[in-house]
Order: sequence, then C-alpha cells, then structure tokens
Amino acid sequence: MFDISLVGTGGMIPLSNRFLTAMAVRYNGSMLLIDCGEGTQVTLRELGWGFVNIDYILFTHFHADHIAGLPGLMLSLSNYGRTDMLTIAGPKGVKHVVESLKVIAPELSYSINYIEISFEDSNLKNIVLGEFHISALRLRHRIECIGYSIELYRKGKFDVARAKEHQIPVEYWNKLQKGQNVEFGGNIYSPDMVLGPDRKGLKVSYITDTRPIEEIPDFVRGSDLFICEGLYGDEEMREKAYGFHHMIYSDAARFAKEGNVKELWLTHYSQAMTNPFEHLYNATDIFQNTKAGEDRMTKTLSFEE
Amino acid sequence: MFDISLVGTGGMIPLSNRFLTAMAVRYNGSMLLIDCGEGTQVTLRELGWGFVNIDYILFTHFHADHIAGLPGLMLSLSNYGRTDMLTIAGPKGVKHVVESLKVIAPELSYSINYIEISFEDSNLKNIVLGEFHISALRLRHRIECIGYSIELYRKGKFDVARAKEHQIPVEYWNKLQKGQNVEFGGNIYSPDMVLGPDRKGLKVSYITDTRPIEEIPDFVRGSDLFICEGLYGDEEMREKAYGFHHMIYSDAARFAKEGNVKELWLTHYSQAMTNPFEHLYNATDIFQNTKAGEDRMTKTLSFEE
Repeated sequence: MFDISLVGTGGMIPLSNRFLTAMAVRYNGSMLLIDCGEGTQVTLRELGWGFVNIDYILFTHFHADHIAGLPGLMLSLSNYGRTDMLTIAGPKGVKHVVESLKVIAPELSYSINYIEISFEDSNLKNIVLGEFHISALRLRHRIECIGYSIELYRKGKFDVARAKEHQIPVEYWNKLQKGQNVEFGGNIYSPDMVLGPDRKGLKVSYITDTRPIEEIPDFVRGSDLFICEGLYGDEEMREKAYGFHHMIYSDAARFAKEGNVKELWLTHYSQAMTNPFEHLYNATDIFQNTKAGEDRMTKTLSFEE
Repeated sequence: MFDISLVGTGGMIPLSNRFLTAMAVRYNGSMLLIDCGEGTQVTLRELGWGFVNIDYILFTHFHADHIAGLPGLMLSLSNYGRTDMLTIAGPKGVKHVVESLKVIAPELSYSINYIEISFEDSNLKNIVLGEFHISALRLRHRIECIGYSIELYRKGKFDVARAKEHQIPVEYWNKLQKGQNVEFGGNIYSPDMVLGPDRKGLKVSYITDTRPIEEIPDFVRGSDLFICEGLYGDEEMREKAYGFHHMIYSDAARFAKEGNVKELWLTHYSQAMTNPFEHLYNATDIFQNTKAGEDRMTKTLSFEE
C-alpha cells in the first residue's frame, strides 16, 4: 500500500485551521516528507502517522513556510532517541540552510545525509531513495525551487512455468521475485529468467511555488495523483499570482489535463482563500477529477491487478 | 488592562492539542512575547490577539521548542508589511541565533534590534522596553537560560489640592499626571509637585527550563501571576527532571509560596504528561492558588483601586 497525505495546505501564512506546507508518503514502513512547514510534527501526530519512520525529507525550496517546521521535527526525533541516519535533499545550499537551522537543535542523536540537487547541466534530475524513485524538476520561483515526482517501480510477474522449466528449487523463488540473483549447483540464476516485463508502478507528483512552465505536463505525465499549488482560485488573481511566482487553480487543472493524470489535488492556498471550495469550478471546468486539498487529506494507492 | 496569555504549554515535544512554549502580554496596544515555540503564530491567531502588534520578543534560551516558531512569525510579519522595528532580546548569542534562522526568511520588511543579556558581572539584569520593566535572572539549564519578570509601574495619585495650591492651570494637569514637566509663566513644574508616592504596579514572572535555584523566590516576589514550569507532576519524577535541568510541580509551588505570589500557573509539560490536572494536588498541597496552565489560558490584571 502506497499512502499519500497532504499534511499541510497553507501557503505563506497559516490559518488557525490550516497548517503550512508539507506532504508525506509511506510505503513498506518507510516515510518520505516533502517540505516541512511550521507545525508539521503536530499535524503528523494528528494524522496518526507520527514521525519516527521518516527516512527522507525533500525540500522544494527554503522559504520559511516550507521549512520552518524542520528544527522542531529534528529535535523531536532526537528526543525520541533516533539513531538511524536522516536523509535531507533539496536545492543547492540545503546543507548550509539546515546546518544554520540546527543552531537551535545542536545536539542530535543521529546523523544527517545531505543531497544537494543542482541543475547546472540539466533541468531534470533523478534520485533513488530506498524504494522511492524521485525525479526533480527545476521550477521558476523567486529563489531556486524544485518540483518532485515519486514513483514506485513494480517488477514483472513471476513466471512459475519458466522457473520449473529451469528446474529452480522453490526455496529460491522468493529471492528471484525480489529481483536478486541466486546461485546453486554452480549456476547463477538472474531474475529476468523468471520475471515477466516490468509492470505499471505508481506515481505521485508535487508541484508548488512556481510560475507555470511548459515542462510541467511532461514531468507529471500519467501520475496517479498530482498535487499542485493553487495560490488563488479566481481567474482575476492570475496576474497577481504570477507576479509572486505562483499559480492559480486553472493552471494546475490545465497541467493535470495535458499531463493525463488520474486525479488532481489543489494545495498551498493564500491566507486570503478562506474557502478554497468556492472557486473549485475554475479547476473542474478544465479537469473534472480535481479536489480542493485539505490538511491531512489522505489517499492509498494500490498496484493495478 | 494588562492581559497575559499562556500561548503554548508544551515542553520539548508538542501534542496534537498542546503547542510548544510561548507566553504573551499586552498593554496599551503593545505586545511582548516570551519565547516562540513552533506554532506560536497559529495559536496567537486562535487566541484572537494576532501578532502584528508584537513589539518585543524575549527568549529564555535557544532550544528549538522555545524558538522554532520565530522564522515563520518573522516571515508572516513581513508578509503583512510590517515596517516598525522589532526588538528581540535573549541570552548572549541571540543575534547569531536569529540571524542563522533568518536563512529561511532572508528578506524582511522591517529591521531587528537585538539586546544581548549577559551575566558576566551580575546574575540579575534590568531592561526597559516601552512601558514594560523587565528583570532578567540567570537560571541553571543545560545552556544559558533566563527567567523574566515583567512589571508595569504606576505613578502616584494626582493631588488636586496641591495642583490648585501651586495655581497650575487645569490644561497642564494631564501632562503632569503622565510624569512630564510643564512650563508656564516662566516656571517649570515637575510631576512630583502634584503626584503622590508611586502606587503598586503589576508584576508577572515567568520561569522555565531550570533546576530549582535559591534566587527564584526573591525574583518572583509579590508577582500578581507567576508562571512556572512543571515538567512533571509526580514527586517520583523529581530526579529525572533535575537530571534534564528541569523542575516539577512541587518546586514551582514552593517558590510560589516562598515568593508570596498571588497566583501560580504551571506550564512546559513533558509529552508524557497527557493529563496535567491529575497531578495538580502535588502543587496545591503546597500553594493553594495554583492552576494547571493550558494553551491560550488568559488573565487580565488591573491596577488596584
């Protein structure tokens, strides 16, 4: 099961019922967070996911509404006695930023592995974090900002007939199924001998804090869930949003449609948007399967049968 | 009216219904915050006080649970277009710490005035911030930590008979009442000519994150409200609390009694203390007028008639 939660949906300034930006996914006991706005450790508790299983934190960029929850979260992980390394990835400078924030959480019980994503040679980068296959797209914000997609790959179906044909004992099947080589009777057997072609995996994309750029539809193509900022819902706010390097509902919906995604959730609302639902038609007119995201809105994706 | 609010009562790790440490006072349109744990800007909104009137922020120390809400608050103040200077005071190093946190809120619309409180020559320092008369006491925590008291002074009563005796025209009375000199007919008249002796002001004290030290009763003496940490409520937790450089309910109550304060509120609870009320007898047995603080608990103090 691949769980996704839109932890916080507030952009720039929180409301009393809307926390700042964060989203989380979990799969096979491992949790990955994108952004960590102020209050993230509280909303993760309310959600019931807790935070001790967080292995990876990706940052889109370093404005406070996306990262101010990090020092508190780091300290809490330490207070819980974490010893596993924490991996933190983000735009160039991520180490400097996090180390600066650590001035208020100086003595952690675990180490941090930094991954700086630089776009000097390409606007698109790939990272593998455990079972999460991450793509990173350079966006266009007031400072360097990254859009992410998270994919779970899925191996081909195990072909029992072929396994028998090769006379591979049953006790090795599980290992081959997991994609590992096995050796017995002097021979090495590789997974491709018994696995069919890779099957369709799962994909979630997350784009926030950018002007609309033409690379987005290709980047999010085929996503099972596309989470995208809609700072404002109203068409009349387009110019203002672009001026701040942000997008509106209809931009998100257009990208959802062009990228042929299955479902769109809107997020990162301006504090002026006290009721994100009343503008929803501006998105659904373009892309029907759009939902106005709310704090802790959750979805579980399963591999296709 | 002197309003006091216990904004957040969580120590170290927040609960879903308990934010991290902060308290606020306001008087005559000016607001002062002590500590700014993660989520403070959200709870201030819930409280209905907002945060645009914050003129002064005092930090007890620089552990994340006491300061992680600062960068988000600073950014929000900027997003609201603040131009008035913000004064931030705290232990030595406050400028370095805040400037480090500003890495995620680099472009603020206002300037910051830093006051570093150093105890090289004395364990007690005084600062005047507008109408707030602050005393700062060096506490004993794992890092440098400060206890604060906030006093409002009150001038003596205006003596109409003496004003008439000196033949001071009525239009000057208000100025004299405010403590200013007036000049007319070639003479300077000073407030002491028409004001009685200073009257009793108001005093609030705030002590958290320290081992019990003998200076506390004198420091909080006569407080109308004494807010003090009770990391644990149970007597059996004394040793553990002291080991972390913290205090328990009965320490707070003993200081309240010895310091002859009017009322005690407990705060800064361990996350293990899911119900701070069930241990309250450990404090009330020693000092009757004790309340277990809750987030956004508020009290208004008035000058005595």
